[in-house]
Amino acid sequence: MTMYDIIEKKKNKNTLTKEEISLFVNGYVNNEIPDYQVASLLMAIVLNGMNDEEVTNLTLAMANSGDKMEYNFKAVDKHSTGGVGDKTTLIVAPIVASLGCKVAKMSGKGLGFTGGTIDKLESIPGFRVQLSEDEFIHQINEINIALISQTKNIAPADKKIYALRDVTATVDSIPLIASSIMSKKIASGASNLVLDVKVGTGAFMKNVEDAKELATTMVNIGKNANINTLAILSNMNQPLGNNIGNILEVKEAIEVLEGNGPTDLKELSIELASYMVSLFKNISYDLAKNQVVEALENKQALNKFYQLVSSQGGNLEKITFNPKYEYKIYSKKEGYLTKMNTEEIGKIASLLGAGRMTKDDIIDYEAGIILNKKINDYVKENDLLATLYTNKEVDLTDNYLHAIEINNKSTENKLILGVIK
Amino acid sequence: MTMYDIIEKKKNKNTLTKEEISLFVNGYVNNEIPDYQVASLLMAIVLNGMNDEEVTNLTLAMANSGDKMEYNFKAVDKHSTGGVGDKTTLIVAPIVASLGCKVAKMSGKGLGFTGGTIDKLESIPGFRVQLSEDEFIHQINEINIALISQTKNIAPADKKIYALRDVTATVDSIPLIASSIMSKKIASGASNLVLDVKVGTGAFMKNVEDAKELATTMVNIGKNANINTLAILSNMNQPLGNNIGNILEVKEAIEVLEGNGPTDLKELSIELASYMVSLFKNISYDLAKNQVVEALENKQALNKFYQLVSSQGGNLEKITFNPKYEYKIYSKKEGYLTKMNTEEIGKIASLLGAGRMTKDDIIDYEAGIILNKKINDYVKENDLLATLYTNKEVDLTDNYLHAIEINNKSTENKLILGVIK
Repeated sequence: MTMYDIIEKKKNKNTLTKEEISLFVNGYVNNEIPDYQVASLLMAIVLNGMNDEEVTNLTLAMANSGDKMEYNFKAVDKHSTGGVGDKTTLIVAPIVASLGCKVAKMSGKGLGFTGGTIDKLESIPGFRVQLSEDEFIHQINEINIALISQTKNIAPADKKIYALRDVTATVDSIPLIASSIMSKKIASGASNLVLDVKVGTGAFMKNVEDAKELATTMVNIGKNANINTLAILSNMNQPLGNNIGNILEVKEAIEVLEGNGPTDLKELSIELASYMVSLFKNISYDLAKNQVVEALENKQALNKFYQLVSSQGGNLEKITFNPKYEYKIYSKKEGYLTKMNTEEIGKIASLLGAGRMTKDDIIDYEAGIILNKKINDYVKENDLLATLYTNKEVDLTDNYLHAIEINNKSTENKLILGVIK
Repeated sequence: MTMYDIIEKKKNKNTLTKEEISLFVNGYVNNEIPDYQVASLLMAIVLNGMNDEEVTNLTLAMANSGDKMEYNFKAVDKHSTGGVGDKTTLIVAPIVASLGCKVAKMSGKGLGFTGGTIDKLESIPGFRVQLSEDEFIHQINEINIALISQTKNIAPADKKIYALRDVTATVDSIPLIASSIMSKKIASGASNLVLDVKVGTGAFMKNVEDAKELATTMVNIGKNANINTLAILSNMNQPLGNNIGNILEVKEAIEVLEGNGPTDLKELSIELASYMVSLFKNISYDLAKNQVVEALENKQALNKFYQLVSSQGGNLEKITFNPKYEYKIYSKKEGYLTKMNTEEIGKIASLLGAGRMTKDDIIDYEAGIILNKKINDYVKENDLLATLYTNKEVDLTDNYLHAIEINNKSTENKLILGVIK
């Protein structure tokens, strides 16, 4: 069995065995198989697909390709497939930790039009995202929560395969996306996992059917790997909440923890947290939801957030927000705001300085957008639509106006589009 | 437009424009596009196909990637998609040259289980397969014929793409096979071209439908490139003629030119030569065939062959044939010989020393096989089936017996399976 035979097999729509998948994954990570053979196989997988067993075997082979975290406790994790304005981790992690769930979370940096939790945390002066393994585990044992950036060699095969997919137009494949996400979660030692699969103009999955397929695939992998897994499908046809950009998102997360904040962000956070608590404690969703709502009302979640920040050296008092430039965007039309090209709005935030277009870009934590009108809001001429904040002299007003649509009829806009168990 | 977008487009089953195909071909041959991106595109082409316009554009881009031969005369060429025991070039080229057609032929070396015309010519002591361009053209002007090995930088893009296809399981694609063959023919300056598309156990195309599709694709490319093109589909369910191996094939070609030799080889040679003459002279097939048959009968074709050999320095008198080992294979069964695994028989000939399994193998010109029984011959127990000749001590008797089948009923066995104009 050679890599050539494996490509040939997938090209002819046959099922790859566990051994064949291991040979490809291990051979690639050990530099024994060249990029061009893997590129050819990846395109064959994109076009001919993989069944559940193949996807699980691919996931496990990638999960086993590097370090694997093991804890003396069971933890609960969440993962979002990526959106714009999604700061739910900053909200749900303290909520569930305040209710006794263990949160041992390793997050990534943002790239492209989506932000990353690590960047948001780093916008808090002093916050240390790099803890030693001992510090990490000690802190979880002490206060139930630690949020750090991925330092260990987690799923290196996924990293290498992802980099190749990125340049060979083989990203958009449900088996490849699902195995990439789940391999990292398995190697990170998750025991309970709630997935937030985004759907819409600001998400990788543009329609509910694809999102459902991705969610189902990931839930199946989770089950096959003995992880309690559940997936929520949530709307990403508009940014989540009103704030986009690192400091702005930290502020908005705190607003929600204080009991205020925008409805959509609050609602999705409660939903995610409830499922996390339900899985971790093995209790009903309704019971878990009562606890979550209470933890918000009595501020124990807010206090857990403060405890997390100070444990990792952060100082919220020292956050300053004085961006040099402020562009206020006013409507030229009257009607309902019916469309937001959310990917485009994410890109605008990135161009303002809030994100990275390439890995080496430096982030401006103050840059970002505050949205004043969102989908189905009624807008009059000259109403304030949004404000862009930046330290670069770059006027993206027209780009923003092109990214939205105002019409005379409102549209459908549901936040939670399904749950896959 | 980047290579990434081109891959994306083909992945999504869209049609590539002429500009996109040029960008890919030229970028690859100039080392601006990496192997892994081309590998991904090739797999997308294998699985999603190409329409006639795309195939023509790919062919022309590859044909234009290096040197292009131009002659002050119109020539006629033939090309076989590769088989076992196919020595027709040695027969038809002298026939048509003796009838006034110009044959300016550049051939390749053999690889794998098929032999190459150049190797056969080099088995004639003294025969120079490398002529300068001046010598080549001068000889054609003098005696209408020259057969040389490809020396100029003909279609380097095809060479580079073919090498990548060979290691990425992307060989078996009709658009890629057709464009590879035709790009070399176009760059070699053919004006009239007869293709011999082989079908069967010893051919790349295992069934008539695939062979027809390949032939039609190539004929269309030829027409789009202003080459008079015609394709014959011919049977490769058994080796052509009785002799396999370089010296053995030269001897058998001479037998046919002398008016003897096996029927199938003679019939196919007449067929190919007739179509070549018909295209070159723009006369009917029947008229052309009369001329071809006469050229064989009056030995003018044989004399043209002698003239070719001596013009290029060869000396037929000096051919010796004394292989060290001779394995006679006798039948253990009685009945009709109904199947010959021709690819396997080609591999046996290669293993005896007649061909190359890798590019650097050295050929033993004496090695080969003489077949005594072919399809639909009635065989008695202990009848001689074949004799293997070699200078290596390697007994492949059992391999040969496994490659054939003897049954109590004869089978269908047609030599010419179609003509595509």
